[in-house]
Amino acid sequence: MTDFTATLAEFAAGPVTTTAQARIITSLSALDWLAVGRAGIDEPVSRIIREMILSEGGAEQARLFGGGAAPLRAAALVNGTISHALDYDDTHFAHIGHPSVAVFPATLGIAAFEDRPVVDLLEAALVGMELSVRIGLWLGRDHYQAGFHQTATAGAFGAAVAVGRILGFDATQMRQVLGLAATRAAGQKTQFGTMGKPYNAGLAAANGIEVALLIQNGFQPNAQALEGPYGFGATHAGMNDVARAVDGLGDEWLFESVSHKFHACCHGLHAALEAARDLDIAEPEVAEIKIRTHPRWMSVCNQLAPTTGLGAKFSYRTVIAMQAVGYDTALPASFSDKTCADPRLISLRNRITVEADDTLSETQARLELLRRDGVRREAEHDLLAPLSLPDREDRVREKASKLIGADEADAIWSMLRTGGRAADLADRLDD
Amino acid sequence: MTDFTATLAEFAAGPVTTTAQARIITSLSALDWLAVGRAGIDEPVSRIIREMILSEGGAEQARLFGGGAAPLRAAALVNGTISHALDYDDTHFAHIGHPSVAVFPATLGIAAFEDRPVVDLLEAALVGMELSVRIGLWLGRDHYQAGFHQTATAGAFGAAVAVGRILGFDATQMRQVLGLAATRAAGQKTQFGTMGKPYNAGLAAANGIEVALLIQNGFQPNAQALEGPYGFGATHAGMNDVARAVDGLGDEWLFESVSHKFHACCHGLHAALEAARDLDIAEPEVAEIKIRTHPRWMSVCNQLAPTTGLGAKFSYRTVIAMQAVGYDTALPASFSDKTCADPRLISLRNRITVEADDTLSETQARLELLRRDGVRREAEHDLLAPLSLPDREDRVREKASKLIGADEADAIWSMLRTGGRAADLADRLDD
Repeated sequence: MTDFTATLAEFAAGPVTTTAQARIITSLSALDWLAVGRAGIDEPVSRIIREMILSEGGAEQARLFGGGAAPLRAAALVNGTISHALDYDDTHFAHIGHPSVAVFPATLGIAAFEDRPVVDLLEAALVGMELSVRIGLWLGRDHYQAGFHQTATAGAFGAAVAVGRILGFDATQMRQVLGLAATRAAGQKTQFGTMGKPYNAGLAAANGIEVALLIQNGFQPNAQALEGPYGFGATHAGMNDVARAVDGLGDEWLFESVSHKFHACCHGLHAALEAARDLDIAEPEVAEIKIRTHPRWMSVCNQLAPTTGLGAKFSYRTVIAMQAVGYDTALPASFSDKTCADPRLISLRNRITVEADDTLSETQARLELLRRDGVRREAEHDLLAPLSLPDREDRVREKASKLIGADEADAIWSMLRTGGRAADLADRLDD
Repeated sequence: MTDFTATLAEFAAGPVTTTAQARIITSLSALDWLAVGRAGIDEPVSRIIREMILSEGGAEQARLFGGGAAPLRAAALVNGTISHALDYDDTHFAHIGHPSVAVFPATLGIAAFEDRPVVDLLEAALVGMELSVRIGLWLGRDHYQAGFHQTATAGAFGAAVAVGRILGFDATQMRQVLGLAATRAAGQKTQFGTMGKPYNAGLAAANGIEVALLIQNGFQPNAQALEGPYGFGATHAGMNDVARAVDGLGDEWLFESVSHKFHACCHGLHAALEAARDLDIAEPEVAEIKIRTHPRWMSVCNQLAPTTGLGAKFSYRTVIAMQAVGYDTALPASFSDKTCADPRLISLRNRITVEADDTLSETQARLELLRRDGVRREAEHDLLAPLSLPDREDRVREKASKLIGADEADAIWSMLRTGGRAADLADRLDD
């Protein structure tokens, strides 16, 4: 049997061969993470977590979203939480979680503190996120269904390894950091729908950097704490399919299949919004729109006539009407109570119906448009369909521009693509 | 079905009726915790965790074992870890863990920070430890056998509630703090035998105070995260016998049955050492000693002729010989390589045999002494046998005197029994 921890540790400590595609996607995730984090600073959970940490004071080791600085562990807790506050960050379906919000807060903090170049930051983050995907895959759907939040659990291991890579850990230390992360990592799905969900992302980042700093200081843990009868997989309902989890490790970057969110609402609505985008609907011409979606989503995001911004984020009819009327669904601010009261939106919404269709997967949706002139058009979208690299770059940079302004988005993108210091990038956590 | 979280929260937020016995035992645990923590400051794990925290700097909100101060969350991590470094702190068999090392670091920190009297500190700690016992009991042996460390898991809930009580939380906030602790609490038994074990105690304390500070700042978590199909019990192999866990809550203090350790070695050796104490053995007169113990311990602490101090802590023959020859088994320093090489000790050890006896429980041991004059004597001890309150006070105060000196032990005991400020007690974390 493969020694899982040893395999991961050797990969994490050794030289890696990255592809151009993996490097670009990591850079896009970094830009996306920075933009989404900055957009989330006014959320109530962001204010609460910043307030607690700023009251602690301490060495200004790492910068915070929203301004100020804090010790590395504290900054990771803040930046992890804030960047997941809008739930608008990237998602990886094999990981079953959000890789960037766990790994970037810890890795950017340590890379800037150690005054490393951006290129090292990106490589360490890629390795950490790849391992979080592999460990998330190893923990599997059973772990998620049992009630654990992979963003927090698998994420802590990824963050720990990424920090360890910046600190130059050898394979022994990488084993140790994985072992110690196993006793620190936590995060429950019961917190979904509350401030506890973004907090879980903060936990991953903070736990990861804490255990890495301890290993750096000579802490000696049980370094074999992932697999085995009492390991993290066994205690946390992990599926433990090691062979599948390490398949292609080093040759293939599973991280490349990460998804970026282009609409500031429930993920269940995104396939329909993308299909509607293809139809390029103009409100006045619509006689009727029929949305078909996987039955699972009917109980999650099919509010028929919400009156609040939050409700709108869980409503097929509302978001499709928003898009057709001209609201920008990429902007969190578009989802407001005022939007829900817009007579044009209400009028169009009344012409939209939603139906469950069990021939569709959870990532697919189909739209049928009947125009007033009698023309019928159809479009279908699958979130798993690969986006070409140029298209992905356009969409992520466009999203970032909307969230933080084109100048800032371009400046950050330039830092990510042309090098520079991690510390300069960290200065962009605040405007 | 009883609403478990609500029952615990109402108890934790409401007025409580403490018994004189519960108050004295809590004070003894506080003294024991302070003495054991101070005795542990030179352990390698203590140095490592202090170094990491001191490098962070920050507001001097709470004092540290070994000197200095740090923010509340950081100090709880340090003090929890250091006070469990020697594994010499109190144990509760129903909790299946160590209550004081999780609860006191967090509670003393916040009580001193809020400038509260010692009496409030002790009441809050008692309530927190009682809840950690109840939650440990609810999680049950299944949780422990699965691989979780109740000191860390149940302990985090206890620490959270105790801090909440100092902060004046109402029942709603107590529910919230339990709910948020459910996503933060962690600690694996795989770390036993490594620095990870005392770290787990630090995690409990740090996690408890972190979630309490967040709730104080208005954090809104899922407040129903203990029970239920995805609650902490369900995800963490908890037995979920709510009725048993809340039986007598408010009338009876399960915490009263906490055990204090009087020998600085493996718990499996303590019953035999207590039985030997009753026999008052003097080395020259011994022809033979036969030790009978539960079979489980034969593989845990029956090293026959260890040559190191660490080995001595897991050796029946060595510790009984040490006691008869005149080494003080209450002192961690007695367990040294030099002691193992003492010819008098080696000579006596050769006259001692150890046998498994399955008529004994895990907390029992029996000794048979054959003197050179032909007299035979026997003694038996059960660690569960209640110690009278005066005897317990004598033993704990004697232990504390040995660890930190009689003057310090008396001064701390006086603060605990006659009142004073928590801040003055916190000054005693360092000599």
